[in-house]
Amino acid sequence: MAYKTDIEIAREAKKRPIMEIGAKLGIPSEHLLPYGHDKAKVSQPFIASLADRKNGKLVLVTAINPTPAGEGKTTTTVGLGDGLNRIGKNAVICIREASLGPNFGMKGGAAGGGYAQVVPMEEMNLHFTGDFHAITSAHNLLSAMIDNHIYWGNELDIDARRVVWRRVMDMNDRALRDVVVNLGGVANGFPRQTGFDITVASEVMAILCLSNDLEDLQKRLGDIVVAYRRDKSPIYCRDIKADGAMTVLLKDAMQPNLVQTLENNPAFVHGGPFANIAHGCNSVIATKTALKLADYVVTEAGFGADLGAEKFMNIKCRKAGLAPDAVVLVATVRAMKMNGGVAKADLGAENVEAVQKGCPNLGRHIGNVKSFGVPVVVAINHFVTDTDAEVQAVKDYVASQGSEAILCKHWAHGSAGVEELSHKVVELAESGAANFTPSYPDDMPLMKKIETIAAKIYHADGVIADNAVHAQLQAWEEAGYGHLPVCMAKTQYSFSTDPNLRGAPTGFSVPVREVRLSAGAGFIVAICGEIMTMPGLPRMPSAEVIRLNADGDVEGLF
Amino acid sequence: MAYKTDIEIAREAKKRPIMEIGAKLGIPSEHLLPYGHDKAKVSQPFIASLADRKNGKLVLVTAINPTPAGEGKTTTTVGLGDGLNRIGKNAVICIREASLGPNFGMKGGAAGGGYAQVVPMEEMNLHFTGDFHAITSAHNLLSAMIDNHIYWGNELDIDARRVVWRRVMDMNDRALRDVVVNLGGVANGFPRQTGFDITVASEVMAILCLSNDLEDLQKRLGDIVVAYRRDKSPIYCRDIKADGAMTVLLKDAMQPNLVQTLENNPAFVHGGPFANIAHGCNSVIATKTALKLADYVVTEAGFGADLGAEKFMNIKCRKAGLAPDAVVLVATVRAMKMNGGVAKADLGAENVEAVQKGCPNLGRHIGNVKSFGVPVVVAINHFVTDTDAEVQAVKDYVASQGSEAILCKHWAHGSAGVEELSHKVVELAESGAANFTPSYPDDMPLMKKIETIAAKIYHADGVIADNAVHAQLQAWEEAGYGHLPVCMAKTQYSFSTDPNLRGAPTGFSVPVREVRLSAGAGFIVAICGEIMTMPGLPRMPSAEVIRLNADGDVEGLF
Repeated sequence: MAYKTDIEIAREAKKRPIMEIGAKLGIPSEHLLPYGHDKAKVSQPFIASLADRKNGKLVLVTAINPTPAGEGKTTTTVGLGDGLNRIGKNAVICIREASLGPNFGMKGGAAGGGYAQVVPMEEMNLHFTGDFHAITSAHNLLSAMIDNHIYWGNELDIDARRVVWRRVMDMNDRALRDVVVNLGGVANGFPRQTGFDITVASEVMAILCLSNDLEDLQKRLGDIVVAYRRDKSPIYCRDIKADGAMTVLLKDAMQPNLVQTLENNPAFVHGGPFANIAHGCNSVIATKTALKLADYVVTEAGFGADLGAEKFMNIKCRKAGLAPDAVVLVATVRAMKMNGGVAKADLGAENVEAVQKGCPNLGRHIGNVKSFGVPVVVAINHFVTDTDAEVQAVKDYVASQGSEAILCKHWAHGSAGVEELSHKVVELAESGAANFTPSYPDDMPLMKKIETIAAKIYHADGVIADNAVHAQLQAWEEAGYGHLPVCMAKTQYSFSTDPNLRGAPTGFSVPVREVRLSAGAGFIVAICGEIMTMPGLPRMPSAEVIRLNADGDVEGLF
Repeated sequence: MAYKTDIEIAREAKKRPIMEIGAKLGIPSEHLLPYGHDKAKVSQPFIASLADRKNGKLVLVTAINPTPAGEGKTTTTVGLGDGLNRIGKNAVICIREASLGPNFGMKGGAAGGGYAQVVPMEEMNLHFTGDFHAITSAHNLLSAMIDNHIYWGNELDIDARRVVWRRVMDMNDRALRDVVVNLGGVANGFPRQTGFDITVASEVMAILCLSNDLEDLQKRLGDIVVAYRRDKSPIYCRDIKADGAMTVLLKDAMQPNLVQTLENNPAFVHGGPFANIAHGCNSVIATKTALKLADYVVTEAGFGADLGAEKFMNIKCRKAGLAPDAVVLVATVRAMKMNGGVAKADLGAENVEAVQKGCPNLGRHIGNVKSFGVPVVVAINHFVTDTDAEVQAVKDYVASQGSEAILCKHWAHGSAGVEELSHKVVELAESGAANFTPSYPDDMPLMKKIETIAAKIYHADGVIADNAVHAQLQAWEEAGYGHLPVCMAKTQYSFSTDPNLRGAPTGFSVPVREVRLSAGAGFIVAICGEIMTMPGLPRMPSAEVIRLNADGDVEGLF
């Protein structure tokens, strides 16, 4: 049997006008700002008018540690959203926007897959509604104003060696990682070394995704630490007077984007912060708006539950005052097998033993999610090569952990394949069992917060950090940043910092190599390994084959 | 009497839904891609469907050499468009898009002024429909792919010292003018010196504005010369295989943007190439689409007629197969006075003698426009301080040159102030007097083309260029580029290359310092002075005061 590709399915979508999708949610057309006929932003006044409504239930979709086999977290998020609508619930999906740059490196794109997708797929993987371009502009305006300030006399006494604010571009361009700017003599400024990150790594992105409204956005932008003086006292974005103009550049980007699933159910696709040096969740404003408009909001977080769900809980929910009602943990038979030691090439053959051997990775995530006080169900995202015995092995294992695993076939059948999971999610969310508790209180010392995550979530023996890291954390505590949560930047492939340690490893420590302050976003980043903030293009970038075909459709992007 | 500011007037605009404006032109709503409720792009299939319709009349609005007094070329373009509609003609305005970056330097913005404006003003001066962001992305994708090609082994044998393709950003950022990239060791590439230009200076911008359709766009992108080998043989964008992906990034940007005037008449605002190193006109696709939809199309070109109208005629019209039916030459009493030697501070006092003394600048432009075989009328853009005697002095002078000057009060009165000019333009355009002839034939040698422009348009004694320039032009002729037109990059303030030489100077030569090949855009650039392709911010950038006010309106941008 031949299967259609994601893009073939997406192109066959019977999209409804976006105004009609908005009407389903009760958004009047004058409060939907269209971008074409299939995308729209929700207006600020409309969002403000919802303040007094009660919230729907919040469901987080997270996953085991990712493997090259693929888990289908977004696919399951979309499928569950459609499934809840199918069983008569009013549900909205909230996912992240895609970054443009990486699509020109490796074939990528897509928002979901099979019959569980969000459309329009091409636009969502290209410029979409321009949010990331606005973030790029706002970020780089601040950069230009910093160098301009130094150029015109440096009244703020910025130490040019300590400008920590770099520039960004939504492009995989390794040539820009490390650059010298201001060359060319008197008219061009004072040469200094700096670099570019990809736009999704910008603190502006994290700020936009954590802000409640435009006022909060401007305050947080003002809080960004851009540089230090010789005496190491900080200089803020506010001192450069860039926060107002940055807010103007971001005023439309701050509004959530409404699109639809293949089954014409509403989806907010908004924001896309890195899941390592940032928190990897869609925007707070989209999630909060969705909660006012729907009975169920299904959202996802980046990477596996050790990173994504942990940050969703400890950063996004804590700071935004959100509390999830249920968690869906996505696993696949194939990923269990890889965790059990099978190579990707051998995934096609039945291997129940390997499935059983890999299950402890899933088990640890189940326990971790429960530690936040939120009920959890496992979704087995079905692949056509999965055998009944393998699926049963996962179910049995999950049952032994006191939870339930449900086989889901949304990839092949859309909402019809995910009814059982949908009913289970409703049951959990309505049970009142959730009693959300973050992993640590605000007032815990910063290093202790890192240690708590390492112990509770990673199950590590301890944290290793040199004196400079300890001293820096202490300095930030003295400067008033001690109440911030910690954003862990660690490999997504393992509970440990060694990407090759699959399963549920023990007997390891977590080395913290560096800490960074994201004062505007409102977290401390603990860097526990190589973190690449500007990707490069591969030897044969997919850009070489991306083109318009004779019908005007995009080829090569997917 | 207190006058309202442009932004106050713009905010009072009674905008009609953009679908209604499109309907006036016969564009079905499914072929208008909305961006909010007041901006839309016209679909590719709709434009293709117009091919067999006959064209309306094309009217160019140009001006004398700009002075700090302001001439009001865009204001007159908008006013005339409204005026033609007022007298019962079906007219469309075609103007350029604004660049985002410079708005954060000096207060700027606006599209027209007073009661002759195009709206929505804020959006047009911020991200608008994202065209410039798309151009930035397409340009920088090519840049990344060039460095990536070198990184992975440099199969094309690019001489890293001869990469001529730089990067762009839509920002005034002098720190990026001259940079070293690829620092940081083996993983980041081979260090080399390069720089950033502002996006409007990108050859991609010029290409987009000169392309007939997406196929033509991709071909021209492929033609870009990005680098040379050691043997000086060229390497094209096509060799890097970036042309397909760049076209994908530009597919929406290629579609003309429809907005409206304060009087709810249609305006296409599309493209914005530099008027020095590029040709400074709105897009060919917008102009051609407008000609199919309206009886009259009023468009403008950058700077004064010596640069703007010359390039409009010799580059845009020649290459796009367009022929203007009439030209409106905008002048002001104030600008005539400045050309006559009056300082800006003294412009308020009546000075008929100075007006008369400055008129030869206007006279030379009149003669130049006539040399293209197109009938011309002078529009005196009225300022409230102008006296009757001063206005009469201009009228008398223009009559002595065999043309007519008409006083226009569109700034104060909108279309009601520009009826006389509108009738005159109709008379000229319908007279059949136009017999468009470019200044030089395609097959003239490149240096001879430069000399022809210098003689016919600037009235210079000759052109000075060293042997390297002559040799380069000859090399390009041998490489098959001899048929291209020449794009002059010269100060806009004078017919000469000395910005202080106002009026109608004689006895000067034109030094050509450098020549550049824009093989994709399809012209040779002759650089006759300092050309800044990346502006800087001033000591007090307007970004410092740009902000959202309590009503959510943008303050400080205008």
